[in-house]
Formats: sequence, structure tokens, C-alpha cells
Amino acid sequence: MSDPSKAVPGHLRVGVIGARGRMGAQTCQAVQDAGDLELVAEVGGRASLTPLVEAGVQVAVEFTHPDVVMDNLRFCLENGIDVVTGTSGLLGPRLEVVRGWLADHPERSVVVAPNFAVGAVLTARFARQAARFFESVEVIERHHAGKIDAPSFTAISAAREIARARADAGLGPVPDATTSDPDGARGADVDGIAVHAVRMPGMVAHLEVVLGSSGETLTLRHDSLHRSSFMPGVLLAVRATTRRPGLTVGLESLLELD
Amino acid sequence: MSDPSKAVPGHLRVGVIGARGRMGAQTCQAVQDAGDLELVAEVGGRASLTPLVEAGVQVAVEFTHPDVVMDNLRFCLENGIDVVTGTSGLLGPRLEVVRGWLADHPERSVVVAPNFAVGAVLTARFARQAARFFESVEVIERHHAGKIDAPSFTAISAAREIARARADAGLGPVPDATTSDPDGARGADVDGIAVHAVRMPGMVAHLEVVLGSSGETLTLRHDSLHRSSFMPGVLLAVRATTRRPGLTVGLESLLELD
Amino acid sequence: MSDPSKAVPGHLRVGVIGARGRMGAQTCQAVQDAGDLELVAEVGGRASLTPLVEAGVQVAVEFTHPDVVMDNLRFCLENGIDVVTGTSGLLGPRLEVVRGWLADHPERSVVVAPNFAVGAVLTARFARQAARFFESVEVIERHHAGKIDAPSFTAISAAREIARARADAGLGPVPDATTSDPDGARGADVDGIAVHAVRMPGMVAHLEVVLGSSGETLTLRHDSLHRSSFMPGVLLAVRATTRRPGLTVGLESLLELD
Amino acid sequence: MSDPSKAVPGHLRVGVIGARGRMGAQTCQAVQDAGDLELVAEVGGRASLTPLVEAGVQVAVEFTHPDVVMDNLRFCLENGIDVVTGTSGLLGPRLEVVRGWLADHPERSVVVAPNFAVGAVLTARFARQAARFFESVEVIERHHAGKIDAPSFTAISAAREIARARADAGLGPVPDATTSDPDGARGADVDGIAVHAVRMPGMVAHLEVVLGSSGETLTLRHDSLHRSSFMPGVLLAVRATTRRPGLTVGLESLLELD
Repeated sequence: MSDPSKAVPGHLRVGVIGARGRMGAQTCQAVQDAGDLELVAEVGGRASLTPLVEAGVQVAVEFTHPDVVMDNLRFCLENGIDVVTGTSGLLGPRLEVVRGWLADHPERSVVVAPNFAVGAVLTARFARQAARFFESVEVIERHHAGKIDAPSFTAISAAREIARARADAGLGPVPDATTSDPDGARGADVDGIAVHAVRMPGMVAHLEVVLGSSGETLTLRHDSLHRSSFMPGVLLAVRATTRRPGLTVGLESLLELD
Repeated sequence: MSDPSKAVPGHLRVGVIGARGRMGAQTCQAVQDAGDLELVAEVGGRASLTPLVEAGVQVAVEFTHPDVVMDNLRFCLENGIDVVTGTSGLLGPRLEVVRGWLADHPERSVVVAPNFAVGAVLTARFARQAARFFESVEVIERHHAGKIDAPSFTAISAAREIARARADAGLGPVPDATTSDPDGARGADVDGIAVHAVRMPGMVAHLEVVLGSSGETLTLRHDSLHRSSFMPGVLLAVRATTRRPGLTVGLESLLELD
Repeated sequence: MSDPSKAVPGHLRVGVIGARGRMGAQTCQAVQDAGDLELVAEVGGRASLTPLVEAGVQVAVEFTHPDVVMDNLRFCLENGIDVVTGTSGLLGPRLEVVRGWLADHPERSVVVAPNFAVGAVLTARFARQAARFFESVEVIERHHAGKIDAPSFTAISAAREIARARADAGLGPVPDATTSDPDGARGADVDGIAVHAVRMPGMVAHLEVVLGSSGETLTLRHDSLHRSSFMPGVLLAVRATTRRPGLTVGLESLLELD
Repeated sequence: MSDPSKAVPGHLRVGVIGARGRMGAQTCQAVQDAGDLELVAEVGGRASLTPLVEAGVQVAVEFTHPDVVMDNLRFCLENGIDVVTGTSGLLGPRLEVVRGWLADHPERSVVVAPNFAVGAVLTARFARQAARFFESVEVIERHHAGKIDAPSFTAISAAREIARARADAGLGPVPDATTSDPDGARGADVDGIAVHAVRMPGMVAHLEVVLGSSGETLTLRHDSLHRSSFMPGVLLAVRATTRRPGLTVGLESLLELD
């Protein structure tokens, strides 16, 4: 499963942890298709990581489970391997632990991203920037009928960023005259922002932010129809590790828009 | 305020009750602009209706208040005047009373419509017809931030019609794997159909129905940007009174689509 | 490739011609998944059709090429097999030939459909029905960047049906004050209806009809994200053959909406 | 028409040129409603500007005609008045003339904006920023049926900015396999970007940019339903004059997003 002889001089040597999962398999394909990257190791989500070292992996892409991601991260850092991970559950205290490990390995790079869709990251960024120019804003996310949680993590994050931008700009609560809503049609209140979740076969993953003022609305919408839409973001993160030591949370700073 | 001399032979003589309200004023304008109608009387929502009789009104358009609409209707029927009304609160038992009055005046016509926007009526109709071909369906309604109730009456009606159509076709509950929704992002449940309400400056009145099955969605959306969008429906109802004695509830049957 | 022993009593015995093409393969899967159908034969698009007869096929689904579809249709009719076909090029004179064959086999059924997406058929139907209530209408179709023709056949058909409905209702040309459009931004003119074609990676097949009058718009939109969205329409046609002898063009009449 | 006694200490004294036009009248209202501005003069589009000087106007908002705007600008600059103008035709050589006048009055400020809708400016900005992350992009603009030119100036500007951003990022032409488009459904080609123009009653002014890559699309859409949506941008420009001497073209730099 690992083969150092595959490495091409000048190419970044990439390994995938969780290579047989859906995101992992897609990542293997995307790395193989990229002209500047070399896929030199594929290991299962709970398998030994020794093949990564044997294959001389420089960056590991990790899509596994919350209960093994910390062990995987530590192994990589201790073995001189940068990591890009999209495994869920890497929040708050766990991030502090990772930051501690990185203090001991200051040349290593870890990118933690809850969402690798560049379009969704741009949607959240643009919504945050536009927020102070509009009187009100709401979030509508749509997903396939098999999703178990509502609203989505990405929608909650976007709502929180928007709420913070409004507060920073000195805006008060969004206007809302509703006095009667017996069945909860107005949706979830996330830091004062209404968030609506639609679940339906025929949908995949869609994030919409609508901002409104007297006489106008601005709509920002990302439609993700296939897992392939995450790959440009994964590859962007892989390449960024070589020039960004330390911990990076979220793709946005990697887009270099400022 | 009334002037029988204004009547033109062969034109339908129309009076407006509640002529100084927003819908009433718009109706006066629309009747004046219509080549086949003659505006011969305008009275206030709580004023004496005698001017209607003096002006020889054939059809009265009534946009007033729930507490006077029944008196207005009875007066018109007793004085040989057909009525088109959009006043809210004309439901269930009140409709039966009106039906009783019409039994005593079998040549008279009353059209009661909760929504005169032909586009919204078509949206609800098409949604009901499409319902049995899709696995799932949700309703999103958007209104200006000054609206006090959620969801809108039109959205509730649409959801109920859709639910009935699904039941008639033998479809079970819509698929939904949601197990965690602590803040109610999934919206209101109206007869098993999720209904979401957005409230925002820059919006007016918008009804969207989304139907989905594996690999596809069908979206039906009506955007009403101005009260003028109700006028074609009001005029359609006015003209229909001459050939439809009895009680008509809703505009749909007047569209003669079947 | 064919096996009469697979037939289950009471089930409709289905064969697929062009079984290794993309639509054919998807159809094989859909028939196998349907509880009331039995897949008893799969043949290539240009292969001998004898296996259909040997397998006792009652209905053949045919997705092949314009240059073989006529031979395939004749073979089936002469061998007592009903046909559902989505092969392109079955227009005008060819349909008359098929009608002639059916005159010799009056118990046989042929369904020819240019588009098996029920949602797209509904969109065109609803647009046609709504057309006379709105002052104007335009069509926007969106497809993947690999499509070679613009606008799509489905969009052209929809525009033509809409134009006919407007003419039947006595509506004149759509209002359009454009006097300067040096680069053709107003799109194609199909029987007086503007049709716009968008081509982009990330899109699949999308049909949108927008109708507008003073103060309001009605939007009807079908989004097809995957070939699986055609299967309900294919199965609907397969089942309809048993009760509709003769030629049926298009899915709409099979939906039994009137 | 002008009244210096109306000025409130500490408030910016504003005059409106073209005060009886639609944009001018809306501006007068907006200035009156703003707590930090004082409307001290209103003059017609071709009237004497002396009242501006008599009223001690600090900033003039100018919505007039291409044939008088240059005279109005010069008068203001020579009389110590800053100017915000949305009059069309202030391009290329004319801007150079204005720049020359400002060289003689280095403390004066002129803001020239083709579009005062902040939402439209944000849409164009976000589209330009997102462009390099997507394989393709198209622009769809929708306007009322009375608009005489297509595509809109704002859509052309947006397309040009997007094309420049793609070129800067080293992206080649957008992918497009179209070989047959006899009636021009693919729309206008503006620097390699397809631009589509929809014209319809019920629409006002809408700008949509759609970006797409394999498996995803990003949609940025501004809907302007009323002239009131331009007022926040006008007031933003008025206030900015006090701290931005020289010529400012377009609202974007005033939004201070970087």
C-alpha cells in the first residue's frame, strides 16, 4: 500500500489516512490527477501509520474518526509529517492540544478544516463582509434527506460569523415583527440570526445566505452537488502546508484574498 | 362618491367597499383602467352602503374588516349586488351563513378569495398536482419584516393541499433522517410538510414550493413585489360573478384550467 | 444475456435494448429495483434482438441510435413487443412510419419521449398553462459545459408550447423595449419567446421558465442532477404500455393530470 | 428653494441638483431622513446653481443629464462644493477633465458612481474575488421590460472585472463545447464571459453571477426592487467626501472592505 519508489523528484509526497472512506478515496484520485503531487501511501483509518514513514510522506491527508484523529495527528507530527484533516470533532480543547504539540515541532504544519468546499468558505466570507451593509440576514441550508443533524455545522458557523460582524458594526437585532409562530416556522435562532434547514432527496449540500434592506436583497448561494467539489480545497491545503508552519483552522486564510 | 350617470351601457357597474384602504384604492384604479368595467361607487369600509344601490352597482368589491364583512355581504345580497371579497376571517361557519343567504338569493354570486395573486394560486395548484410524482416536498415563504404571523395563510393552505394530494396518492411520510435539531431549524410541521418562514426588509410576499426525488428537484416560486399583482385576480373575479351564481371560494376554479 | 426462467408470474417482463449505454444501464438497474417488473433480457444497441423474443419480453425499453431505432421498433412490433424509446431523431416523418406500423398491429403500444424527466415535463406543462395569465415569459436552460447544442431540445419545445398557448389566448408579442443589444445578450428568439442557454461545469440539466406581469413573477424550475431522475418517467412509460395501445408522444398524457 | 437657516451646526449641509428627477427626489427624502445630514438646497437639473452657494452647501448630489453634468461639476468645484454624481456618460476623457479641475482644487472631492446599489457593488466585487477559484462563470442580468439597452452597464462592468481577474490568475478561456447555436441562445460575449439579459414586467434590476467547477456552483445575486435601495450608497458617498479629497470612481473603495 505504500511505495517510496513512486516519488517523483520535486513533487510533494502525499499520503492518505482513511484512504478507503469516501473522502479519502476521492482524495487519492485527486492527488493522483494533480501534476505537482505524488500519492505515495494509502492507509486505512485505523491502520498502522508506519507505511507513511516508510514511503517518505511529506503531507498526510486525514479523513477518519473523532476517536482516532488525535493519535494520527500526534504520530504524524512526531514523524515529521505535515497534516491536513477534515475529521470532525477537532474543536476547542482538542485544538489546544494540537497547538501544544506544534510548539514542540515548530516547523510542522497542521490544517484543520470543517469544510473543504472553497465555494462554501467564500459564501461565509462574503456574507460576513456584506453583513454590515444590510438591515437583516437569514441563512437557509439544504441537504439530502439522510442528514441527521440540523442545522449544518457550516450554516451555524456562517450565522455566528455574520452575527459577530453585525455586532462589530454596531448593528442591533434584525427587524422581525413576528408575534405569532405557533409551529416554529421562523427556524433556529443562532446568535440572533434565523437559520432554516431543508432536507430532501435530490439535494446534496447547499448553503444560502440572504441579506436584505429596504428595496433590495443580496443572495449568496453555494451548491455542492458532488464530493469532487471538496477536492480543490483539499489540494489547496496540501500545497499550503509547505509554506505555513503552525496551526491553520479553516480554509479561508489559505485563499489569500486580503 | 357615487354617480349612476357614470355608467356606460354594456359595461359592468362596479362599486368598491373599503375604497380608501390600500387594496380598495388599488382596486378603484384597476377598475377605472379596465375597458369593460365602470367604477360607479366608492364607499368607506364602515360607511353606509346606500350609495351602491343609488349608483346601480352590479358587483361590489369588498376589502374591509372581519367585523363588518358579514353585514356588508348581507346588504349586497339583499340589494341584488354580487360581491367579490378578500377580507380575512371568512372561514368555516361564516361561509355556511353566506351559503344560507345565497340559498335565498340563488341568482346572486359571491367570490371569497384569501389571495388574489393568480401566480400564488397557480403555484399552489401546480404544487398539489406535482406532489405525487416526488418523494418529498417543503414550503419556504418569505415576507417583509413587518408581518406578524408565521407561516403565512397562503403557505399553510398550500402545505395542506400538498399533504392531501400525497395522501390521496398513497404516499407515506416524507423521508427525513433528522435526529438532532435542538433549535428548530427544520421549521413548522403542517400536516407533515415542513414550512419555513423568512422575514426581511427588501422582501414583499414570496411563496416557494420545492419538490425532490433522487437526482432532481422541481421548484415553483411566486414573487409578489407590489399590490398591483393582485389586480388581475380581482378583475377576473369581478367578471366571473356574471356567470357563476352561488358561492365560489378561492380563485382557482375561476382560472378554468381543467 | 436473456433468461425466460427469470420471469415471475404477474410481473411485466421487460427487456432493454442498448443495455450497455448510460441510459440503458440505468434502466436495467431501475427495472431490477422495481417490485412489479422483471428484467428478462439485456441486449446491445446494435445486437440481434432475438433474445427479446426468446425471453418472452412484453415491453422493450430502447435507448440506442437514430440509425438503428427504426429497425428496432419494427422488429419489436412484428414480434408482439411494446416499446418505450428515448432515442433522438424520432420526429415528423419517422413518427408517421411508426404510426403506419401500429395500424397493422393495433394492440401494440409505442411510447416515444424526448425527455423522461417527469419534473421537466411538469415544468413545460405548468408553463404552458400559466402563460395566458402573464404579460411576458422567458426560458433559461442551464447544462454542463460539454453540451454541443444550444438551446436544448427541451427548452425549444417548452418555448414553442408557451408561444402557442399565448397565441391561443389572444396575447400579442411579449413587451420588450430593447433597441440596443449589439452582442446578442437577449438570447435566442424561439417563436417570439427569448431563450437563454448557460453552459458550465457543476451544472447538469436545468430548465427554468420565468413568467412576469406588473408587480409579480412566477418561476418554474427543474433541476436534474443525475441520470437517476429519468427513471421514474421510464418506469411510468413501461407500465403505461399495457393499457395504451397505439402511439404516445411525450410523457405528459401518461401523467393523467387532467 | 434654498434656505441656509435650515443648517444645523455639526451637520453636513447637502444640496441636490436635479431634485425633481426620480433619483433626485428620492435623495432629498433620504437626506432629510438622515440624522447627520441637512438638506439645505434643491435645484432643478438645468437651473441656476447659485442657490447652492447661498445655502452654504458643502456637498452636492447631482443626478442630471450627460449634457449638463460637466458644467455642474465645474461650478461646484469653483465654489468650494464637493460633488457626488450618478449621471451617466462620465467616462474616459471626461473623467480626465474632472481630474484636471481637481488638480486646481486639491481639497475638493468628487465621487462618480455608475451604480449606487451597495449590493450590486458587493456582487461585482465578490464575483471578481471568487473568479480564480472556479473553472467557469456567466452573468445573468434581469430588468423591467422598459429598458432599452442590453446588457446593462453594471453587467458589462462585472463581466470585464471577472475576465481581468481570470486573466490575472492565469486561467484560460471558460470551457464551452457549444458547436451549434443558430439563434444566439448563448448570449453576449463580453471579454470571453457570457452575459444574458432578461427583460420582463415584474422585474426591476437584478444582477446574478454564477461561477461553476466540477460538482459545485456559487451564485451571487443582487435584487433591487426599488429606487430606495440606492440611497444607502448615495449617503455613504456624501459622507465620504469629507475625508476623501480627489476623484473617486465607483463605490467599492468607499466600502472599506480591505
